[in-house]
Amino acid sequence: MPQHDAGHLARALDLAIEHSRDGRHGPFGAVVARGESVAGEGWNQVVAACDPSAHAEIVALRDAARNLDTHLLSGCTIYCSCEPCPMCLAAIYWARIDRLVFACGADDAAAAGFDDRRILREIRRDWSEREITWHQTGRKAGLRVFERWRHNPDRVPY
Amino acid sequence: MPQHDAGHLARALDLAIEHSRDGRHGPFGAVVARGESVAGEGWNQVVAACDPSAHAEIVALRDAARNLDTHLLSGCTIYCSCEPCPMCLAAIYWARIDRLVFACGADDAAAAGFDDRRILREIRRDWSEREITWHQTGRKAGLRVFERWRHNPDRVPY
Repeated sequence: MPQHDAGHLARALDLAIEHSRDGRHGPFGAVVARGESVAGEGWNQVVAACDPSAHAEIVALRDAARNLDTHLLSGCTIYCSCEPCPMCLAAIYWARIDRLVFACGADDAAAAGFDDRRILREIRRDWSEREITWHQTGRKAGLRVFERWRHNPDRVPY
Repeated sequence: MPQHDAGHLARALDLAIEHSRDGRHGPFGAVVARGESVAGEGWNQVVAACDPSAHAEIVALRDAARNLDTHLLSGCTIYCSCEPCPMCLAAIYWARIDRLVFACGADDAAAAGFDDRRILREIRRDWSEREITWHQTGRKAGLRVFERWRHNPDRVPY
């Protein structure tokens, strides 16, 4: 483990403690860093900001991407006070983060009242087995959207 | 299918077409609605906003949550121009969305250059099998964060 890992992870834990004191920010913190240099920081803001996506990791990824002026964070490590939930883990992949360091596990989060195990179970299922009500319709119209995209000379793939 | 489904899904497709014309917004749109009433709208802003989390669904969930002044969107349906990626699907569960309607499938998105199949594969694996480099450390310090939370009389669980 690189020497700076301990410092960045400690900072992620500090962010969690500091911001959750008011009870309206969940007890989670995250730091995105490139080597020793911090690129972005985040803490849970779901309740405080009325934003179901505002987990610490998503907030840190958004902060880092804004600071580095790119949506691609390759070369970066994310430090999380707790194992990322499936939403955050997928966001970490989309952001092309190279490496992930975390302190607590998903079971520890569940014991503290933040249980993502049902979500993981659902995502691991196929549509035919999922509990959520869903319906696929209008695929032909949807395909025309992608068709236009493929013929758009200005398109920026990612 | 409720009558208003067709209209909301058509709007999600329109948002995708309208905003992706400039080539800097990916060809995805989403609408969150409670019955006939639209609560929030979104379109992909990953490249344009330098935000790896800014998929259409996440943007629509954030918009709806802000408009309804709550992080809980139970009673709502989300309409997506394409099957949500694992990040967006998990966000849909966190937001307590009841129902999901989508047009294209993940394979259609992959054919258009937006391939989330590696992410789904990774999320379905256990840590021991995942390709991303990861490290769990400092759990004891992490547990103290949750311990403080459990003893915080002001905490708002979600």
